[in-house]
Amino acid sequence: MRQHTVMGQSVPKVDALERVTGTAKYGADVFLPGMLHGKILRSPHAHARIQRIDYSQALKLPGVVAVVTAGDLRGERATEPTTHHAKSEDYAPGHEEEAASGARPNSSRTVFAGAKALWAGQPVAAVAATSLEIAEQALDLIDVSYDLLTPLLSAEEAMRPHAPLLHPNLFTQTLLEQPDKPSNIATYVELSRGDVAEGFKEADIVLEDTYRTRMVHQGYLEPRATLAKMDAEGKLTIWTSTQGSFYIQEQLAEILRLPLRQINVIPLELGGGFGSKDTGVLEPVAALLAIKTGRPVKMVWGRDEEFKAGRPAAPSVIYLKMGVKKDGTLTAAEMKVITDAGAFPGGPVAAVTSHGLATYKIPVLYVEGYDVVTNKPFVGAYRAPGAPQSIHSVEQHMDRLAQMIGMDPIEFRLKNIAEEGDRMPNDASLPRVGFRETLEVVKSHPIWKNPPKGDHRGRGFACAMWGGGRLPTSCALKLNGDGSLGLIVGYVDMTGIRTAFIQIVADEFEISPDQVTVTIADTDSAPYSSRAIGSKATYTMSFALKEACDAVKKQILERAAARLDLPLDQVEYGAGRIYSKSDPNRAVHLKELGQASVAAGGGPIMGTGSMSGARLNPSFAANVVDIEVDPETGKVKILGFWAFQDVGFAVNPLQIEGQMQGGVAQGVGWALTEEYFFSPDGVLRNPTFLDYRMPTSLDMPFIDTTIVEVPASDGPYGIRGVGEVSIVAPMAALANAIANAIEVRLTELPMSPEAVLRAIKAKAKPQAGEPVAAYGDS
Amino acid sequence: MRQHTVMGQSVPKVDALERVTGTAKYGADVFLPGMLHGKILRSPHAHARIQRIDYSQALKLPGVVAVVTAGDLRGERATEPTTHHAKSEDYAPGHEEEAASGARPNSSRTVFAGAKALWAGQPVAAVAATSLEIAEQALDLIDVSYDLLTPLLSAEEAMRPHAPLLHPNLFTQTLLEQPDKPSNIATYVELSRGDVAEGFKEADIVLEDTYRTRMVHQGYLEPRATLAKMDAEGKLTIWTSTQGSFYIQEQLAEILRLPLRQINVIPLELGGGFGSKDTGVLEPVAALLAIKTGRPVKMVWGRDEEFKAGRPAAPSVIYLKMGVKKDGTLTAAEMKVITDAGAFPGGPVAAVTSHGLATYKIPVLYVEGYDVVTNKPFVGAYRAPGAPQSIHSVEQHMDRLAQMIGMDPIEFRLKNIAEEGDRMPNDASLPRVGFRETLEVVKSHPIWKNPPKGDHRGRGFACAMWGGGRLPTSCALKLNGDGSLGLIVGYVDMTGIRTAFIQIVADEFEISPDQVTVTIADTDSAPYSSRAIGSKATYTMSFALKEACDAVKKQILERAAARLDLPLDQVEYGAGRIYSKSDPNRAVHLKELGQASVAAGGGPIMGTGSMSGARLNPSFAANVVDIEVDPETGKVKILGFWAFQDVGFAVNPLQIEGQMQGGVAQGVGWALTEEYFFSPDGVLRNPTFLDYRMPTSLDMPFIDTTIVEVPASDGPYGIRGVGEVSIVAPMAALANAIANAIEVRLTELPMSPEAVLRAIKAKAKPQAGEPVAAYGDS
Repeated sequence: MRQHTVMGQSVPKVDALERVTGTAKYGADVFLPGMLHGKILRSPHAHARIQRIDYSQALKLPGVVAVVTAGDLRGERATEPTTHHAKSEDYAPGHEEEAASGARPNSSRTVFAGAKALWAGQPVAAVAATSLEIAEQALDLIDVSYDLLTPLLSAEEAMRPHAPLLHPNLFTQTLLEQPDKPSNIATYVELSRGDVAEGFKEADIVLEDTYRTRMVHQGYLEPRATLAKMDAEGKLTIWTSTQGSFYIQEQLAEILRLPLRQINVIPLELGGGFGSKDTGVLEPVAALLAIKTGRPVKMVWGRDEEFKAGRPAAPSVIYLKMGVKKDGTLTAAEMKVITDAGAFPGGPVAAVTSHGLATYKIPVLYVEGYDVVTNKPFVGAYRAPGAPQSIHSVEQHMDRLAQMIGMDPIEFRLKNIAEEGDRMPNDASLPRVGFRETLEVVKSHPIWKNPPKGDHRGRGFACAMWGGGRLPTSCALKLNGDGSLGLIVGYVDMTGIRTAFIQIVADEFEISPDQVTVTIADTDSAPYSSRAIGSKATYTMSFALKEACDAVKKQILERAAARLDLPLDQVEYGAGRIYSKSDPNRAVHLKELGQASVAAGGGPIMGTGSMSGARLNPSFAANVVDIEVDPETGKVKILGFWAFQDVGFAVNPLQIEGQMQGGVAQGVGWALTEEYFFSPDGVLRNPTFLDYRMPTSLDMPFIDTTIVEVPASDGPYGIRGVGEVSIVAPMAALANAIANAIEVRLTELPMSPEAVLRAIKAKAKPQAGEPVAAYGDS
Repeated sequence: MRQHTVMGQSVPKVDALERVTGTAKYGADVFLPGMLHGKILRSPHAHARIQRIDYSQALKLPGVVAVVTAGDLRGERATEPTTHHAKSEDYAPGHEEEAASGARPNSSRTVFAGAKALWAGQPVAAVAATSLEIAEQALDLIDVSYDLLTPLLSAEEAMRPHAPLLHPNLFTQTLLEQPDKPSNIATYVELSRGDVAEGFKEADIVLEDTYRTRMVHQGYLEPRATLAKMDAEGKLTIWTSTQGSFYIQEQLAEILRLPLRQINVIPLELGGGFGSKDTGVLEPVAALLAIKTGRPVKMVWGRDEEFKAGRPAAPSVIYLKMGVKKDGTLTAAEMKVITDAGAFPGGPVAAVTSHGLATYKIPVLYVEGYDVVTNKPFVGAYRAPGAPQSIHSVEQHMDRLAQMIGMDPIEFRLKNIAEEGDRMPNDASLPRVGFRETLEVVKSHPIWKNPPKGDHRGRGFACAMWGGGRLPTSCALKLNGDGSLGLIVGYVDMTGIRTAFIQIVADEFEISPDQVTVTIADTDSAPYSSRAIGSKATYTMSFALKEACDAVKKQILERAAARLDLPLDQVEYGAGRIYSKSDPNRAVHLKELGQASVAAGGGPIMGTGSMSGARLNPSFAANVVDIEVDPETGKVKILGFWAFQDVGFAVNPLQIEGQMQGGVAQGVGWALTEEYFFSPDGVLRNPTFLDYRMPTSLDMPFIDTTIVEVPASDGPYGIRGVGEVSIVAPMAALANAIANAIEVRLTELPMSPEAVLRAIKAKAKPQAGEPVAAYGDS
């Protein structure tokens, strides 16, 4: 196989300068003449019946152009009421079905509160005005009559048989049978393999415990921003900061009942998304206002709006029971999961139930999952959605079991590690994976032999796995008039894909990366791509890129053969030139072909590539973390962090290191400090970065990264998804480290100073002790 | 062959509503935050040496950010002088060569005056400031020291052996030999066939005369407008109103010495171009200011700037001699052409010399052409550039000869008409053409039997031909998730190509045109297309469209066959569905395939098409016009106008009628009223629409159109270019009509009331009479 020339190199990000100098165009950087500004009125109540929304006074305020409510999604625009009376159609069974299907949680129902407000922060109405100030003023002039209802703030509470219902027509989606009455359980998942009772009988030790995680926010830098414009021909154009322009197009087509072809989505630079921006939340509101006013409408969220309605990550409760023989063989596992979806169905129950137990050979298992609606913000995806919650429980359990049988934690995992052909709890078969190789690399890493020394210090270890996405993508590649290559894609650049794609094309053509450009085009112009989610952009696009490169090379060879007056089989491509096999000096260069292709008598050269048939392509990570706990304050100080990850093939090691470090940083925040605080009536108490405590650079150590490359069996270059798995292990790694440092086991996140201190105090009472792990002594 | 379902129909323009409601985005409709406004300082003198440009005072005006001059194109930016001293490098021989080559008249030389100002209106410097008002004020603060030189205002004068030179290093480009000294003759063309002296000996009648046309402007609605932005990565983005986004990219790459890939051109809607906007005149200035300031710079020309520097059409002097036998057979022709290029080489001498005598079989001929530089605005293309000037002379001559030998003007032309295989003066061989068929249609049209009656009334007849362009183009076509088709092109829509392209794709797929969208993308995203010039957009793109449709259909058939579980040869495409040949009810629809292609396990469907090898594909037109001359004022009133044109295959008859009517209207203006008036020192006296007299709706009769369809032998649908030939015949047709109405022959344009009156008065003197034509009596 040809040696790679550009892939595998840490080529600097092609858009770095534009981003750091602030000249890159983000969602809030678009302006149109005559543009209006939109603002959203949000419910102050977590659960309330809406009797009436009177916006007549708001419309009287000079500068206010329009107000929209749920009624506008029912087609009430024509009559232009100034009072919106909540109607039963707001909860039409058709809509309920959509909402409950799980597949389409983003129906028109989720845009505005209908007959009820379902969480404090839910959009109730939106205003478009000639200035932001007027729009904000107008919100105060909208009179909403609420009848307060009791809010359901925990999933466990909402699951109780006689709990009040959020949605009168929500019937649990289940693999078994259709329930006969509605409930707050949106989805039920049941996965099983073999006889679990028998499995536990075989075990020498059985450990059971319950683990909890809280609602956290993705905390991207850039709040949502959208500009919507409807033209005279009925074409809607949306400029927005999104992870998926084609998905926004599809979503708006569905919500607004417009044909796809009448919607063009122009993706702008993305100031972070991490899953939250995989769905349009603001776009439908801006579009409705643009349609109603006939003018461009710009909307930019404040940070508080992001916290209140920016689709944070779901809280979870996980009961876990695992059995192990004295020799370290796992015999059985049982897991019961509750994910709290917030106001609409959509918690990550499928990923939680399928991922936690996927990395080990477990002969028999039983997994149950419930996705439950509550009067809290409607959740969304967050980097490897579901896996952090799930792995948080399993990797603590694995450490505890290893300690209980006195085995080295890595050896224990290696003994049970899942390999090619093993099945995940959801019965998906694992392809070639790098789990074992990654653990071997950790074992042989110098740090593993060198555990932290001193009081209140400890080391934690945990593993992680993420299945990743594989939805379709495509691309187009053209030879430019100067012989450079122009790639056109529909993926949004969330993680540096511009640079990676350029590297792949440059490598295929054996040319310098500065001879390749990449354009992220709008949905009208771009080849289709699904969302930048599931760590899949580079992996899936690699199929399409190879195909497009081959298509362009074929045309280039044909042109060159004709130009050299040689038969096609007598010419060969290499490093930007096409030459005679028998006389390599007889050659034409890409530049000549490019020039000729656009000159008289020429013909432009362009090819396309399409990904289909990509398969499950899991990535695997392992973390080692050393900490010191301050026994006086409970504060956990990270002394060192080592992240290991199997990336298949590292197209750009530097970018991958950045992904690994970023994921770890987010995992650390989730583990130690981040959480949503709600008042007893369900109002979010900390919707600012002052009160919502994300780690700062002062909280973080240098994160040392080690890239492992076990090529994926699928795809042209063995690439695996790399973006998400790095967030998964830190929570369990830190919990294990705390246990090792101060001999207390925290099963709930965040492990804030307060929580650690509480655990230290509780430990004073006698309890079943856990032996200190003997890391590095094996 | 399959019956056409959408082609051939007068589908309404898909972008009509947006255009007429003013919501379409033209050049001046783009705004960027922090944008500066640019204005150009122009030379007030037609010919002057520039000693010094001192802009230090302008830079002191608050709000002024930068000034650029020719020095900025020499790379003086780094030192930021506030005084520009004209240098000899401004006339470096290298640049001269570029300018003189004819192929590249748009070098950096043409952006700003260098050591000399070459016409009154030439850009000398440009200012970028925070407001338009400040930029305008700043122009007054730039102090330019001029040494006045004698302006050369006519080409005949400039050609004289000892005339002062505009360019010290301009050597005539000639087919014969390299001249030994510079001159004002930029290009010399000589075409000959046989022994002309012998040919004239064979003639019974020989007619010679000299015809003149003046400088006229294309008169589009929208003045030039451009916004330029340079980003931190060194990428230049240009939003502009142009006929060719890829050409602007190439031109800027050359002028600014940037790689093509660092320039993205975003074409906006075009408010008319007619050839003038085929080249960037304003774009390089805006780009220079954007580069120098690091901020977006917007520039919008005023109407006066368009007249002064908007690349009007070249004046011409044509001496013509033709010989004919009594039986009507042409025996020989001689033509001597002078085109006046204005300040830089670029007059349409090639088209003038090749087109005028192309429509008739002329056994021997001799044609000479000179393109001459003068101190007037630098000319550009105007609808069939060169053909109006050329045909103006030939079609008057043809009418005069017909009358002299007493033949019906159509029969005379039919007797000599050129046909497939005949050669143009430049030796190009005619493919299948519809000249004869068009004349037959005129002959059989009811109006032809019904000439105007009454005093001072007359009918004119003339023919026209235009070779048209054939530079490369390409396109991409994708199947959308809703089963609609999305076409992506790089052509600018000047004449309704969006609608025509949609019709072709819809026709190929036998679906409704509303199931097809077309996107005109920027140069980064679009498949390459050359400029929208030469009546070639629909003709050349038809090759690429067919190829792309076939490529997409192939993929669709493969997917459908797999879906239907049938071998590929057992499925067939028809009207939006793919069905089993043996059981047509077993089918999948485009919509299903579209949905599946973007869903899990799918793969997006996209294909490309590229035009290469398009050939000469001439179009032909004939005009009949009835007029009445007011003998008191000389004013010509048009009573009726009948335009006939061979379009090959009329994709959209309504749009073609619009093209025909528009071309005639412009031809009428050129014929009767339009001209540039210069003061003796070379200053344009009428740079406004008040003083430059274009026809208004009140001047124009209804223009009756008859479409003739003689399919072109080239291309998939027999399409010919249709946009330009319609402007060519009206001048001669009107001159012939005036001759027939009042028995005076005007050989010079415009035939304004003043000119007609002068001719009537001159006619009072005895002269060789011309018989009145007996139209319709044959």
